[in-house]
Amino acid sequence: MKTKTTIKDVAQKAGLTVGTVSRVINNRGYISKETQEKVYNVMRKLNYQPNEIARSLSKQVSNTIGIIMPYINHPYFSLLLDELISVATQGSYKVLLCKSNSQTELESGYIEMLLANRVAGIILCSPSVDTIKLNELRIPVITIERNNDSATAGIVCDNYQGGVLAAEHLISCGCKTLLHFGGVIGKSMPADRRAEGFAEVCEDKNIPYRIVPSRQEDGYAMDYSKFVEDILIQDPSVDGIFASNDILAANTVQYCVKNHISIPGQMKIIGFDDTPLAALCAPNLTTIQQPVKGIAQLAVQLIQKNRFENSNSALYVLPVQLIVRETTGRKGK
Amino acid sequence: MKTKTTIKDVAQKAGLTVGTVSRVINNRGYISKETQEKVYNVMRKLNYQPNEIARSLSKQVSNTIGIIMPYINHPYFSLLLDELISVATQGSYKVLLCKSNSQTELESGYIEMLLANRVAGIILCSPSVDTIKLNELRIPVITIERNNDSATAGIVCDNYQGGVLAAEHLISCGCKTLLHFGGVIGKSMPADRRAEGFAEVCEDKNIPYRIVPSRQEDGYAMDYSKFVEDILIQDPSVDGIFASNDILAANTVQYCVKNHISIPGQMKIIGFDDTPLAALCAPNLTTIQQPVKGIAQLAVQLIQKNRFENSNSALYVLPVQLIVRETTGRKGK
Repeated sequence: MKTKTTIKDVAQKAGLTVGTVSRVINNRGYISKETQEKVYNVMRKLNYQPNEIARSLSKQVSNTIGIIMPYINHPYFSLLLDELISVATQGSYKVLLCKSNSQTELESGYIEMLLANRVAGIILCSPSVDTIKLNELRIPVITIERNNDSATAGIVCDNYQGGVLAAEHLISCGCKTLLHFGGVIGKSMPADRRAEGFAEVCEDKNIPYRIVPSRQEDGYAMDYSKFVEDILIQDPSVDGIFASNDILAANTVQYCVKNHISIPGQMKIIGFDDTPLAALCAPNLTTIQQPVKGIAQLAVQLIQKNRFENSNSALYVLPVQLIVRETTGRKGK
Repeated sequence: MKTKTTIKDVAQKAGLTVGTVSRVINNRGYISKETQEKVYNVMRKLNYQPNEIARSLSKQVSNTIGIIMPYINHPYFSLLLDELISVATQGSYKVLLCKSNSQTELESGYIEMLLANRVAGIILCSPSVDTIKLNELRIPVITIERNNDSATAGIVCDNYQGGVLAAEHLISCGCKTLLHFGGVIGKSMPADRRAEGFAEVCEDKNIPYRIVPSRQEDGYAMDYSKFVEDILIQDPSVDGIFASNDILAANTVQYCVKNHISIPGQMKIIGFDDTPLAALCAPNLTTIQQPVKGIAQLAVQLIQKNRFENSNSALYVLPVQLIVRETTGRKGK
C-alpha cells in the first residue's frame, strides 16, 4: 500500500527545500514564476494537496476574511468589492463573500457562519441597523459606511465634505436654485451627512435649496427615473442638482435629455461615488469621488492590526474629491 | 475547569432538539426566524461556536464553491457574480472568491489554493487560455464563456445567435452600412461567434459591413472612447453599430452625442450583456441580454451533480434575447 504523499516528497522530487515548497503553497515571500510552476507540476504529478482545512484547524483561526455586501450588482459595491479583494489577496488572505440583500436577518446568519469558519475578521459593508452586538465578537469586525453604536472600527468617507464640495461647485458654476436628491426615506445612514454639508453652504450663500430623500425600492431596482420625473416636474426652477449616487445622477441626465433641458446650459448635475458609470454617461458626470482604494486598504489593515482583540472603536473618516466632468460644464472628456 | 460547550448544551438551554439546533447551524430545512434567533442567542450566551473547519475536515470536502472572476468592477462580471452568489447561497454553499485580473498564472495559483481548501467545485469565469489541465482535477470545474479543449463542463450564451439578432434588427430598422465592434485583437474567445452570426446575416441580405476587433487594454480601462473615435472618423457612412459589450456601446453613444450625430435618427446602436448600464445611458441601449440568472443556476447545479466525478464535458449553450430600447428607435423608456 502506498503511503500518503507528504511535502517532503514534493520537495525531493522538485529538487527544492521543504521551506521553498511551503512558501509556494502558502504564497509567502518572493518566489519566481518558474519555481512556482515547478512545484505545482510536481504536486499534480504526485497528486499532493496540502490540506488548508487541517492547517486552519490547528491554528484555530484561518487566513480568511469574511466580506458581507448588501449587493454586488451595483456600481459602488462592485467597485468597493473589487478593491477589497485586491487588497485582501495582496495580504495573503482568502475571501469568503456573502450577499445580504440588505436583510438584517441574513446578515446575522452570515456573521455566525463566518465565526464558525474561524475567519480572521469580517468586513461589513451594509447600512442596515445593528442586529447583533458586533463588539461581543472575538474577532475584528470593520464596518464601512454604516451607523454604529457598537464598539467596533468603522470607516466612512467624508460625506459632510462631499455635500460642501457639491454645493460650492454648483454655486460657483452660476446655479441659482439647488436640489439635493439625498438619503433614503425612513433610513438613517452616514451618507445623510451629505445633505448637512450641502444645506450649510446653501444657507451661508443665501441660495434657495431643497433636499428630497429617495425611495429605497428605487435604489434596489437601480431605477430612479419615475422619482426624478415626479420631483422635477414640480420644480422647474431648479438649475443645479446634487444626486447622492451616480445612478441617480444618470437618471437625472436621462430626464433632461428626454425633456430637451440642456446640460450643463440649463441644468448642472453632480453625482456621488465616481463609479465607472460616471465616465460612461453622455454627457459624462461630474461627481464626488469616494476613496474606495483607501477604504479597502484601511479595512484590511485594521483586521491585521486588531487580530487579537476587537477594542479599536475608532471611526475613520477618509477624504473625498470633486471630479469635474461635462455635466457641470467642462467640455470634452 | 469548565468543559467545552457542546451542541447538546445549546439545545437544552434553548429548549429545542439537537436536530433543530443542527438545522439552524447548517442552515438546512425550514426554520422560523424566531427559532433561528433563539438558537443564535443561546449560542452567544454560552459562547458556543460550531467549528465548520473541523466539520469540513471530517468530511474531506467543504460546502464551499470557489469562484474565479477576471474582474469584479465591470458591469457584466458584477452582474454574473451577483447571480452566482445568490444561487450558491440558496444551495447552502459558501463562496470563496478570487479575482485573477485575467492573469493566467494567478488563476493557476487560485485553483491550487481552492483545491487545498477542499472546495466542492470551482466556477471559472475567465476567457484566458488554459493553464492547467482542468480535467485532471478531482472536483467539478465549470467554465463560463471560456474556450475549452479540456474535458470539463462549459457554459456559454448563444453568441452566434446574438450576432444574428443584432444584424437582423439593425437591418429591419433601415440601416444600410453596418459595423461590428467585436472580439479582442489577438485573443480567441466564445464571444467571437457574435461576429460570425452578424457577418452571415449581412452577407445573406447583401448589406455592406465591417468587423473591427477592440483592444484588450481598452477593455481593462473600461474606456473605448479613443478607439471608437478612430474607427468612426474613418468610416462616416456607417449608420448601424453592434458593439460586443454595453461599455463599448455607451462609448459609441458618447461619440455620437459629442459629434451631433442623432441617435437613432442617423445612427442606431446595439450593445451586448444587458447590464444595468444599458438602462442608464441617454438614450438607453438596445442590447442583447445574456441569460445570466440561467447561467448561474446551471453552474451551481452542475457542481452538485458532478460532485463525485468531473466527467461531464458537455458545452451548454443558453439562449440570448434582443432587448429593444431607444438607441434603435423605441421612444420613451
